[in-house]
Amino acid sequence: MKLDELYALLRRRGVLWPTAEIYGGAQGLYDYGPLGAALKRKLEGAWTTWFVGRSPDYYRIEPSEIVPEAVVRASGHLENFTDPEITCEHCHAVFRADTVLAKIRPDGIDGLAPAQIEEVVRTNHVRCPSCGSEALSVPQAFNLMFDVPFGVARTDRAYLLPETAQASYLAFARMWEVGRKALPLGIAVVGRVYRNEIAPRQVLFRLRSFTQAELQIFFDPASPPGRLGPSATERVPVLRVDRRERGEGSPELVTAGELVASGLPEFYVDHLLHTLRFLRDVLGYPAERIRFFEKSEKERAFYNRIQFDAEVHLESLGGYTEVGAVHYRGDYDLRRHSDGSGKDLSVSRGAGERLVPHVLELTFGVDRNVWALADLHLARDGDRTVWRLPPYLAPVATGVFPLIAKEHRAFAEQLTHDLLAGGIDAQYDEASSIGKRYARMDEAGTPYDLTVDGPTVGDGPEHGTVTLRSRDSKAQERVPAADVAGRIGPSLRPPRPPPP
Amino acid sequence: MKLDELYALLRRRGVLWPTAEIYGGAQGLYDYGPLGAALKRKLEGAWTTWFVGRSPDYYRIEPSEIVPEAVVRASGHLENFTDPEITCEHCHAVFRADTVLAKIRPDGIDGLAPAQIEEVVRTNHVRCPSCGSEALSVPQAFNLMFDVPFGVARTDRAYLLPETAQASYLAFARMWEVGRKALPLGIAVVGRVYRNEIAPRQVLFRLRSFTQAELQIFFDPASPPGRLGPSATERVPVLRVDRRERGEGSPELVTAGELVASGLPEFYVDHLLHTLRFLRDVLGYPAERIRFFEKSEKERAFYNRIQFDAEVHLESLGGYTEVGAVHYRGDYDLRRHSDGSGKDLSVSRGAGERLVPHVLELTFGVDRNVWALADLHLARDGDRTVWRLPPYLAPVATGVFPLIAKEHRAFAEQLTHDLLAGGIDAQYDEASSIGKRYARMDEAGTPYDLTVDGPTVGDGPEHGTVTLRSRDSKAQERVPAADVAGRIGPSLRPPRPPPP
Repeated sequence: MKLDELYALLRRRGVLWPTAEIYGGAQGLYDYGPLGAALKRKLEGAWTTWFVGRSPDYYRIEPSEIVPEAVVRASGHLENFTDPEITCEHCHAVFRADTVLAKIRPDGIDGLAPAQIEEVVRTNHVRCPSCGSEALSVPQAFNLMFDVPFGVARTDRAYLLPETAQASYLAFARMWEVGRKALPLGIAVVGRVYRNEIAPRQVLFRLRSFTQAELQIFFDPASPPGRLGPSATERVPVLRVDRRERGEGSPELVTAGELVASGLPEFYVDHLLHTLRFLRDVLGYPAERIRFFEKSEKERAFYNRIQFDAEVHLESLGGYTEVGAVHYRGDYDLRRHSDGSGKDLSVSRGAGERLVPHVLELTFGVDRNVWALADLHLARDGDRTVWRLPPYLAPVATGVFPLIAKEHRAFAEQLTHDLLAGGIDAQYDEASSIGKRYARMDEAGTPYDLTVDGPTVGDGPEHGTVTLRSRDSKAQERVPAADVAGRIGPSLRPPRPPPP
Repeated sequence: MKLDELYALLRRRGVLWPTAEIYGGAQGLYDYGPLGAALKRKLEGAWTTWFVGRSPDYYRIEPSEIVPEAVVRASGHLENFTDPEITCEHCHAVFRADTVLAKIRPDGIDGLAPAQIEEVVRTNHVRCPSCGSEALSVPQAFNLMFDVPFGVARTDRAYLLPETAQASYLAFARMWEVGRKALPLGIAVVGRVYRNEIAPRQVLFRLRSFTQAELQIFFDPASPPGRLGPSATERVPVLRVDRRERGEGSPELVTAGELVASGLPEFYVDHLLHTLRFLRDVLGYPAERIRFFEKSEKERAFYNRIQFDAEVHLESLGGYTEVGAVHYRGDYDLRRHSDGSGKDLSVSRGAGERLVPHVLELTFGVDRNVWALADLHLARDGDRTVWRLPPYLAPVATGVFPLIAKEHRAFAEQLTHDLLAGGIDAQYDEASSIGKRYARMDEAGTPYDLTVDGPTVGDGPEHGTVTLRSRDSKAQERVPAADVAGRIGPSLRPPRPPPP
């Protein structure tokens, strides 16, 4: 579906809507309704199971989203977390400079100072995209962080976290004590971060408040985590820098072993592959929609030694878009916070040697993937609209319908109660025809429906059985009500990672 | 335990620690470590099951924590969400005025303007609690909300939510369309809120960023939700205003029926009872530690028609403290947002009549209850420290120990994997003696431990069985490994509410 059509559907179904909708909304802010909130929680759980569940030495924490200024000074965000902007002196519109100059500078404007950008604007006679005037100016860089007046004196400055990663770096020293005092050590955060984006857009794709799921793996580069083993023959869809420079945009399927042979570290390729499997096998994204986009030295942040963005091709956005990434950040982060805090963050590597751990960062945009799960799995199918979510991500696991409310309600309500008590998200529905109830559940992504009818409550051979209907195949079969939990339960738990 | 001892233990075990600890922390901000984060998630889940699970017309949403200024202007927070403060001109310390004047004005200073408070200070020769000087002044009221510079022009003002309730009121119109278009309709939020507290203190009890779980039930006062039925004979520990005015502090056990006879609406008493059951039966707080503290007309916010705070008596805080509340807010909130937004929030009640729904608010402090769960359930027991968390709240459900790592590792690892795949939070541990492993799990609140030993992997009659040990009774028994999930699984799911 196109963006507008998909958004309208999600809004109507209460998956998401603009924050403060009755006040006309607020740019770059959305609320998740019941279906969206449940899907998001399950997605966060599936991510945690897949990434944090990979090692008993990986932990998930929940930090505060406000940090004192010293933290973002040390991390470099206070100085560098900026987007150059262009403002129109005539109509007062504000734009991201890279967007306005996209055609003139297809390689981007990274590293250009405001004065240099202004020169590009002047020499190319760039006009305001809004009013057409040439009265454009390039003010001083705009920091994307939200600062909050902290404390009663309002002199302590604090900031809303611009990325969850910083909270994991802050927690390293404490987690070293709490854990096994050994590397690798993983610290994950699933949490809100905040950016005062110049141009929020595309619903969940450029937000001012959004949720990241990030795992920081602290390790000794002499013994990094992740071996390929038999996976060396698995193919990864990559778009490397050399092919990009030749103007190609489609990924190439390269085996993990070949990627290592080309110079990428084995542990890095192992985590690319683990990310691929999450997108393809856990979230169910079609393999041909996924690519890993290598960032060149010029494009990536200077502390990132290697960076591939995980991208998916979405119809609603008309192309590939980033939904995650794998960053090899070296020892930059802990060094900065050692310097900033005065606390030595090096650890013993035995034999009297000490080391500042390196960081491999697996980052994942939760909201963007909620959107991707809608774009890729929600579709018209003849006269029905079906959201083919993997069962373990579906907000509702099964509908429970009495065929005739008056006669079958008691049994259906008891069955709903029993399923809920067993940890299965069942939802009772007695309103309108069975066909309409199926349609509502199909649109909500519910993988199963159970119907209670005459034979269920009668004395015949089908006593105590219900009709189990599958969303995807539309196949129906009678199963004993007592067997339902055992039948559908396993499909409702997210896949666990293979042993490393 | 005393506050300092309990906090030291929780910090050492990685349950929680100050935000940006390596930078010396930040007042009123804490991070949850692995145990704390997992406990908090399970507590949020248990709350959702108990309160939101009470009706299919109750929904949980996830709103943005930033709202535009118009929202907090309409709600009254911009004008009224203030705490009077007293500052010292000599040493520049800042205090909450009610705290400094607690002895002089035991009934509080609600309703006094800054000038009137200053007069109280002058006439009583109040001295600065910090430096002893009499150079105290009372500045204009201090708004507790954090404002954020929103948008590129920084002229749009936005605020971090001071309470989740506002997000539910904003969502009412959309949820009316998404739901059954009928009352009662419940909208719940479990989310972060932010207050720039003048004096953060007592670890999790006065925070600047904290999590609330709140359910707003929108209803028609002509047919409110909640009937007592046979529960009318159940006793509720209340401290009513009349007994408080006579100087009494201990609660009285009064039946629900008597509370109704005294003039409280039946639906209100039903929700007091439901809250009592949550604290006592779900969280396991001792009944004698709980009281419902009635707020007088003068004490409660003017829009609250009835308010009882749920309080628990905690050793670490040396008295009763608020952990939740039940507020009957009337139609104040939707009327304010109707006026503020210009959107008519009344709904049809049939027969051509329209109604602005009334609101019953069930509010619950997640962080405070994490603390209460530690205060009330974590204790020294001889030479061990045991956290007697209800099994469904325990961060780890079961430890899995190979008696001798080399010989029993394979079986124990496979068992851990199988339990995890079945949705049971098992944790493998092979470090140090079995006794020490039990001790670590006891302190972490783990209700079960499984030990794999010689008979497990041998050929004898106990082949395939493991030792299941209970944290609370310390009893041990051999059970087939294949039966473990069935044995412990039901205790790991939070209780569901009784049918209404």
